[in-house]
Amino acid sequence: MKFLKSDQVAAFALGGLGEIGKNTYAVQFQDEIILIDAGIKFPEDELLGIDYVIPDYSYLVKNQEKIKGLFVTHGHEDHIGGIPYILREINVPIYGGKLAIGLIKNKLEEHGLLRQSKLNVIKEDDIIKFRKTSVTFFRTTHSIPDSFGVVVKTPAGNIVHTGDFKFDFTPVGEPANLTKMAEIGKEGVLCLLSDSTNSEIPDFTMSERRVGESIQEIFRKVQGRIIFATFASNIHRLQQVTEAAVKNNRKIAVFGRSMEAAIEIGQELGYIRCPKDTFVDANEINRLPAHRVTILCTGSQGEPMAALSRIANGTHRQIQIIPGDTVVFSSSPIPGNTLSVSRTINQLFRAGAEVIHGSLNDIHTSGHGGQEEQKLMIRLMKPKYFMPIHGEYRMQKMHAKLAVDCGVPEENCFILDNGEVLAMNEKEASVAGKVPSGSVYIDGSGIGDIGNIVLRDRRILSEEGLVIVVVSINMKEFKIAAGPDIISRGFVYMRESGDLINDAQELIAKHLSKVMERKTTQWSEIKNEITDTLAPFLYEKTKRRPMILPIIMEI
Amino acid sequence: MKFLKSDQVAAFALGGLGEIGKNTYAVQFQDEIILIDAGIKFPEDELLGIDYVIPDYSYLVKNQEKIKGLFVTHGHEDHIGGIPYILREINVPIYGGKLAIGLIKNKLEEHGLLRQSKLNVIKEDDIIKFRKTSVTFFRTTHSIPDSFGVVVKTPAGNIVHTGDFKFDFTPVGEPANLTKMAEIGKEGVLCLLSDSTNSEIPDFTMSERRVGESIQEIFRKVQGRIIFATFASNIHRLQQVTEAAVKNNRKIAVFGRSMEAAIEIGQELGYIRCPKDTFVDANEINRLPAHRVTILCTGSQGEPMAALSRIANGTHRQIQIIPGDTVVFSSSPIPGNTLSVSRTINQLFRAGAEVIHGSLNDIHTSGHGGQEEQKLMIRLMKPKYFMPIHGEYRMQKMHAKLAVDCGVPEENCFILDNGEVLAMNEKEASVAGKVPSGSVYIDGSGIGDIGNIVLRDRRILSEEGLVIVVVSINMKEFKIAAGPDIISRGFVYMRESGDLINDAQELIAKHLSKVMERKTTQWSEIKNEITDTLAPFLYEKTKRRPMILPIIMEI
Repeated sequence: MKFLKSDQVAAFALGGLGEIGKNTYAVQFQDEIILIDAGIKFPEDELLGIDYVIPDYSYLVKNQEKIKGLFVTHGHEDHIGGIPYILREINVPIYGGKLAIGLIKNKLEEHGLLRQSKLNVIKEDDIIKFRKTSVTFFRTTHSIPDSFGVVVKTPAGNIVHTGDFKFDFTPVGEPANLTKMAEIGKEGVLCLLSDSTNSEIPDFTMSERRVGESIQEIFRKVQGRIIFATFASNIHRLQQVTEAAVKNNRKIAVFGRSMEAAIEIGQELGYIRCPKDTFVDANEINRLPAHRVTILCTGSQGEPMAALSRIANGTHRQIQIIPGDTVVFSSSPIPGNTLSVSRTINQLFRAGAEVIHGSLNDIHTSGHGGQEEQKLMIRLMKPKYFMPIHGEYRMQKMHAKLAVDCGVPEENCFILDNGEVLAMNEKEASVAGKVPSGSVYIDGSGIGDIGNIVLRDRRILSEEGLVIVVVSINMKEFKIAAGPDIISRGFVYMRESGDLINDAQELIAKHLSKVMERKTTQWSEIKNEITDTLAPFLYEKTKRRPMILPIIMEI
Repeated sequence: MKFLKSDQVAAFALGGLGEIGKNTYAVQFQDEIILIDAGIKFPEDELLGIDYVIPDYSYLVKNQEKIKGLFVTHGHEDHIGGIPYILREINVPIYGGKLAIGLIKNKLEEHGLLRQSKLNVIKEDDIIKFRKTSVTFFRTTHSIPDSFGVVVKTPAGNIVHTGDFKFDFTPVGEPANLTKMAEIGKEGVLCLLSDSTNSEIPDFTMSERRVGESIQEIFRKVQGRIIFATFASNIHRLQQVTEAAVKNNRKIAVFGRSMEAAIEIGQELGYIRCPKDTFVDANEINRLPAHRVTILCTGSQGEPMAALSRIANGTHRQIQIIPGDTVVFSSSPIPGNTLSVSRTINQLFRAGAEVIHGSLNDIHTSGHGGQEEQKLMIRLMKPKYFMPIHGEYRMQKMHAKLAVDCGVPEENCFILDNGEVLAMNEKEASVAGKVPSGSVYIDGSGIGDIGNIVLRDRRILSEEGLVIVVVSINMKEFKIAAGPDIISRGFVYMRESGDLINDAQELIAKHLSKVMERKTTQWSEIKNEITDTLAPFLYEKTKRRPMILPIIMEI
């Protein structure tokens, strides 16, 4: 990093700024780099067929000998999902809370990367020392247990990264360590990187405890079966459902791969404690009377293949909706999922279930703090410089405003883009340069092999379909040997469009014989002739512009 | 309608039940059919490339001589957008308020259907009489002026259709006619078909007047340019913006085709009144100082081609964001549009604008009444039977609950699907049968020529792409004359996948020569051989399942 002076520390992100997801941050002092989180992002709709998005790791690969460790704030996919892809490039030791490390272990096992990985469970009081820098932690509250903020101590000053957080004063697990945060603030924070996700929400986020009360209330009132859908990673929520089930003499059957894994790891690590026979399998649950049944499942976001969606549309192998069932969505739909959640709810109602959903029922709360919590963090840390992280530009911008309200000078707030490097010390701070930080698409087993051209083609194909014109040409005699044949997919229903296709064939044949008379041997000329003839004809007839693929076979 | 007894009246929908959009209702008594509304629906994402959805009109075509008229409750697309497509099939006289008829006129002109159409402007006190039935109206309040409910009087009883409504006691236009509604209720309502859109919202919807106050406040405070985006059809909103601009000595420039049309028709019909020089063109507005500028535009839903989106991403020909600009979203995002609205807001912030959005600022209100308003309608109409219309199943269901709360017996509430016919008289009511009511997709100029097969192909193409294998075969000598060649689109980037493609070609060539040895003349056998060879190979190498299209040219 040429532009980083030796008395400066740099903070930057490869992902997580101006977007939700693929959180990947770095702090660099001289030749020591501390990585914080390595997440994936789930693609928006226009990334057709893409499974995940990760950041460009080329800066890390190029500087791998400098990287001291990857510190994971918590176990959500948007903070750990990129780890297998990083480990394929560089073997960096990983540090995190016990749940995060447990989840990473599972993930690396699936990817066949566990054996060579170096995983370290940290406790809040640990200090991880390197030659020039060291890393300490402070406990936060979030929608998954074992969440930590990270302090990177460097000779140029201390950099604090909050991870995802809210201030839940009555949490289900351990409370946030306000005392330690105050101490960190007292010791001096050069720059605070703080979670912006809910900066547009003025409220103080509701406590998980209140959700527990609502769950208890539902379990007390409902007579029939309870089908409970939530995020598998929200172990505290699972814990509260389990408690409510035990208290009301209900058994629990678990559906969905990630939910099964979560219950297993939750019990293993001691978060979920209950009598041994609380969890039963599908056969057993179907033999119990309705008032003794809890079905705990994935699919609270309407994901088409998840357990709840299949229960809702009647394709689940073991569970069918019966009258008297109550389905609880202990979740709120992520913006892109509103329609699919809505569709699932409609299907459940149609199938005869009662559905409890929405924030009105206090059965879900966010894992991120609202404005007051964000301000509390700023007041505790009293940073010299402030960098809002996690979230879209609008959220970062609002968060910076809050920081100014809390006494950080406006010129000390840095709303950055991915890749922009903030270089700073006690005297000054500025965006000193940029590192590569693009998006890398993962589709199937391919990492980064899908680019804009492929996506553009997918978009055209998806909206207008495809018309293929095949013709065999005898290039010695300048004669059409076979065809032109027309094949289409996603364009019109061929069986009912015989005339259109016949007319198109004739048109092309006529034009091609003229081209043959010119005795051209230029394939591109022949192909252009086909496209230029066919495109306006099809548009005139259908007002559609399918992709046209002329294929010429030379005999 | 075989199943309809001569002393019964039928009510049913071809669209608008269990969905938002394509509202198309009918009331039938013996040989007289009264149509109410003819809307389109904007397709959800999975209908790739589809422009609009209309209902199956075959019942109307088959019974066209019975149809007395199409009564339009108001001028929104989901209530009038289907009219051109109905008129292509049957020439039915159309009745509606003056604004609705004005908008329909524009629409029919575009479609070249205006000349032969029979348009009738109705006033609230009109009675349209047919041989056995007659139709009267009552004024409602909604997010577009000139909204009416419709009463179809038949010898079997009166059927009331509310259209879209809220109860705005301090509206910008004329208030809802409570007196007339009470009289209709007193006269007797056999069945009430009532708008369910907001039945999940407990509140009483905020008055448009309050929105006007917020607009005035913004215009008083803001020093720079105001860019105001809203729904073009909300003429009352446009009226309020115009008033605020005039009061604060600002000129208005209008951008977006539908907004220009709305301002024109609004002025023509007398809804928008202002000094003549209030509206100016783009050149003039760019010469004025910032505090004298209002830009009124489309794009409040983040529609990619609308004026505001182009202003936000810097591609608008005439308007660029300058520091000090304030952009007002006087709208709330429709569920499917949350992400695109969010993207537009981020772009505006990045370009340096202030953005006012969200319900917190009281700059938008719904056009649909919440639960209290729906109950008020039921109490006024005191129907014997109740049919919740407009909205998804969950909304219909909640609306039926409200009706039961207001004294309608549960067995008199009918939550129907499109096509289901409720046959009734004073003695009894039941779902007596079904008429065709599927969805018809419009893509380009094609009506109904895109079916599930084409959509399935588009979906596969969009997510996995396409691999074409072309081979020319000499069928006399059972020899490959040319190829196999492989062409792909939307699958992998071909230039970087040379090895994959070469290996695939070799594999197919090897298999094909074996097939040739069998001297088969079955093309399907050859094609299957290609697909069965290639699919597992590609999946193994890429974990993707592209559409495979084998093309065989016979020489």
